[in-house]
Amino acid sequence: MSRDLNEKFLSEQMQGMRSNIIRELLSFLQQDVISFAGGAPDPKTFPRVENFQEAVEYALTNYEKAFQYGTTEGLPSFRKQIAAFMLRMMSVKLSPENIVVSVGSQESLDVIARLFLDRNSWVAVELPTYIAALQVFNIWKPRYITVPTDKKGMDVHALEKKLRRLYSDGGYLKFVYTIPTGHNPLGSVMPLDRRKHLLELADRYDFYIVEDDPYGFITYDRVPPRLITLDGGDRVIYISTFSKIFAPGFRLGWLAGPEEVVRRVVLAKQGTTLCAPPFNQLVVEYFLRNRWIDSNIDRIREIYSVKRDAMAEAMREYMPSSIDWVEPDAGFFFFTYLPRGLDAMELLYRAIEEVKVAYVPGEGFYADGSGKNTLRLSFSLPTPDTIREGVKRLGMFFEKVIREAGVEVEKEVMRE
Amino acid sequence: MSRDLNEKFLSEQMQGMRSNIIRELLSFLQQDVISFAGGAPDPKTFPRVENFQEAVEYALTNYEKAFQYGTTEGLPSFRKQIAAFMLRMMSVKLSPENIVVSVGSQESLDVIARLFLDRNSWVAVELPTYIAALQVFNIWKPRYITVPTDKKGMDVHALEKKLRRLYSDGGYLKFVYTIPTGHNPLGSVMPLDRRKHLLELADRYDFYIVEDDPYGFITYDRVPPRLITLDGGDRVIYISTFSKIFAPGFRLGWLAGPEEVVRRVVLAKQGTTLCAPPFNQLVVEYFLRNRWIDSNIDRIREIYSVKRDAMAEAMREYMPSSIDWVEPDAGFFFFTYLPRGLDAMELLYRAIEEVKVAYVPGEGFYADGSGKNTLRLSFSLPTPDTIREGVKRLGMFFEKVIREAGVEVEKEVMRE
Repeated sequence: MSRDLNEKFLSEQMQGMRSNIIRELLSFLQQDVISFAGGAPDPKTFPRVENFQEAVEYALTNYEKAFQYGTTEGLPSFRKQIAAFMLRMMSVKLSPENIVVSVGSQESLDVIARLFLDRNSWVAVELPTYIAALQVFNIWKPRYITVPTDKKGMDVHALEKKLRRLYSDGGYLKFVYTIPTGHNPLGSVMPLDRRKHLLELADRYDFYIVEDDPYGFITYDRVPPRLITLDGGDRVIYISTFSKIFAPGFRLGWLAGPEEVVRRVVLAKQGTTLCAPPFNQLVVEYFLRNRWIDSNIDRIREIYSVKRDAMAEAMREYMPSSIDWVEPDAGFFFFTYLPRGLDAMELLYRAIEEVKVAYVPGEGFYADGSGKNTLRLSFSLPTPDTIREGVKRLGMFFEKVIREAGVEVEKEVMRE
Repeated sequence: MSRDLNEKFLSEQMQGMRSNIIRELLSFLQQDVISFAGGAPDPKTFPRVENFQEAVEYALTNYEKAFQYGTTEGLPSFRKQIAAFMLRMMSVKLSPENIVVSVGSQESLDVIARLFLDRNSWVAVELPTYIAALQVFNIWKPRYITVPTDKKGMDVHALEKKLRRLYSDGGYLKFVYTIPTGHNPLGSVMPLDRRKHLLELADRYDFYIVEDDPYGFITYDRVPPRLITLDGGDRVIYISTFSKIFAPGFRLGWLAGPEEVVRRVVLAKQGTTLCAPPFNQLVVEYFLRNRWIDSNIDRIREIYSVKRDAMAEAMREYMPSSIDWVEPDAGFFFFTYLPRGLDAMELLYRAIEEVKVAYVPGEGFYADGSGKNTLRLSFSLPTPDTIREGVKRLGMFFEKVIREAGVEVEKEVMRE
C-alpha cells in the first residue's frame, strides 16, 4: 500500500466512500474458491458471434452515424426500437421521446441522484436494496425512509405509515426507489396488489417511483405487470439494462419516464458521458429489429432456471433448519437469513478460508446498517454441479458455526 | 413546450443548469447555415473499415472478455497499450497502474470534480476555458481563481500573484485546470517557460494540475513537451480521449496520474459507469498494438492543416481591421475578439439570419461572466471552400455591425 491522497484534497462526498465489497471480492478470490459473490451473467447467454458480426456490418453501413458524436438522449432509431421492445415485452406504449439511452443502468442511477437529491432530501428505499444505488444516492447525503420487506418484497403498508408521519411533519418525498421484479439482493417479486397500492400512494402524496428492472426479463414464473405498465408513465421512472439480455461488456442501458423528467435527465447527462457510444447503439438496435433479443430471452431463462433449481434443491438439502431464505421467482439471487446474533461479514473470511466458498454479506444492502445476519448467494455464474457443491460446503460450515454459538442464536423467520 | 419538472423535485445543483449552447445550436441549425459552431471531428479522420473489421475479429477471439463486465480501471491489456502509446508519443514513462480508461474524457472531468470539489473549494481556470469543464465543476459550487490569457495561453505570472494572496489569506488550491496544447476555445499552445513555471508553482504551493489534452495530437507546428512529461507524474493528472484520433462514437478516453489519485478515481467511477465497454477497449487496443493510431495521426494533421490554413487566410482577407484573433498551432479553433462593446451572443442570432453563419459566443467559456465580445470559430467539420465562404460572409457581417455601432467600439488587441 503506497501513499493515499492527502485528506485536504478529498471532497467531503468521497471521504466516506469505501470500495464496493462485491468488486473487492471479485478481484481477490483464488481460483479454487466457489464464488456465489458476483452477479455477472453466464457467458452462455451472450450474443451469437454470427449475429453479432451481421450487426457490426449494419453499424458499418451507417459509418458516419456510428463513429461520430451522437445526441445525448441516444440515436432516434435505437430509441424507437427500445420503445417497440417495451411495448412487446411489457405492454406499455411509450414514445421514443420518453426514452434516454445510458451507459449501463448505473449511469441512470447516477443521473437520477444528481437530478433529484440535495442534502436532507427524503428518499424511500427497501431494507435491503441494491448496494450501488445506495452508493450513488449517498453522495448527496439524503435522508432515507427505510421500508421493511418480506419474501414478497416491499411492505407497502409500512411505507404508508411512514409517509403519513413524514407529510404530517411537513416533509415530502422525492422518490421511492424499488426493484419490484427479481429484487437485488432479495430475489422477490412484488405482488400486484402491492404494486397498485404503491402507485396509489405516489398519486396521493405526489412523488416519483424509480423502478429498477435489470432482472425483470429473467423470470421463472408468471410475474405481475411492471409498475410503468400499470402507471402508463406518469409517476414511474423506469430504468433497465442490456447487460443481462445482451452483454454487460457493451455497457448499454436505458431510462424511460415522463417527458419533464427525461428532459432534465438529458441535461444532467451532458456533464457525465455526453452520449452512449453510437456504434454500440446501432449494434443492439439491429438485434432488437431482428427480435434476436426477444428470442434469446427464452434461452436465457432456461439457462438460469436450471441453476436456480439446483440451488433451491441444495439449500433445502444442506442448510441447517435455523437458516431461512427467499426462493427467487426472478433474477440471480438467494437472499439468506442466518440466526440473529451471527455476523455474515465476520463469517465470510472464515467461509473462504475453511470451506472455500464466497458470498456477499447483506449488511451493505441495508441503508440503516442492519441486516448483519444476512447474505446474498448468486447462482448466475457457477455450473449446477458447482452450485450444489458450494451450497453443501456452506451448509456444513454454517451448521458448525451455529453449534459453536450455542443457544445464543435465534432463527429469523421471514413472512411469506 | 410541455410541463417542466416541479421545482420541489429538482436538486439545487440542477436548478441553475442550462443546456449547453453548443449542443442546442447543433440541433437547431438549418441545412443551409454554415456552421463554425460544433467541434465534431471530420469523418475522414475516422478508422478505415478494413482495419476496424480486423480489430472486431480480434475482440471476438476474446469473446468472454469483450462481452463480460470489466474492471473499473479498464482492461489491463488496453492500459498497457495506452502506457506504451504515451511513451511513444510524449516520452513519458508510466505504468499501466497509473492509467484509468474512461467513457470519453467528459467522464474523467466529472469524476475529478466529484473527487476533489466541495462547496467553496478553490480551483484555478483560464479565462476562457472549456465550457463543459466549468459545467461539471459548477455542480459542486467551488470558487474560481480566474487566470487571464493571451495568445500563448495562461498568464502564469498572474496566477502566481493570485496564489500568493490566496495562501496568505489561509486558503489553498485543489487544482489548476488547463488545456496547454491546442486550447479550447483559445487555440493557444503554452510555451515551455510557462509550463515549467506552472509546475514550479504546483510544487511550491502543493496543488494538482489537471492537464486536459484532447487536441494535443492535432498540432500544426512543433509544441513543447506535455506537462505530464515535464512533471513525470507527481502533480499532473493527465486526461485525453480517442475521440479526435480514432472516433468520438466509440466513447473512449483515459486518465493518467499519480497512484494515489488513480486509486480514488477508480472508487468514484464505480458509481458512474462501472467500467468503459470492454468490447470497445479491445478494438482500440488492437489499433494501438498495430500502431494504426500513430500512423493515422499524420494523416489527421494533414486533413486539419489544410482547413486551418484556409481559415487563417480567409480571416486575414475578410475580417475588419478592428477584429483580432488567435491563429492556432494545435486544435480546431480560431478564438476571435470583436471590438469591446459588441455582444457576440446577441449578434449570433442576426448572423444566422442575415448571413447564415453560426459560431459559438465566447461568454460561456468565461468563469467570471466576461468575454461578451468574443467568439469561437471551429474549422474541423466544413470543407476549405465552405470555410472561405463562411468567413467571408461573417467578415462582411461584422463590418456592417461595426459601422452601425460607430465610434462606441474599441478594438481589443491581445498580447502576442
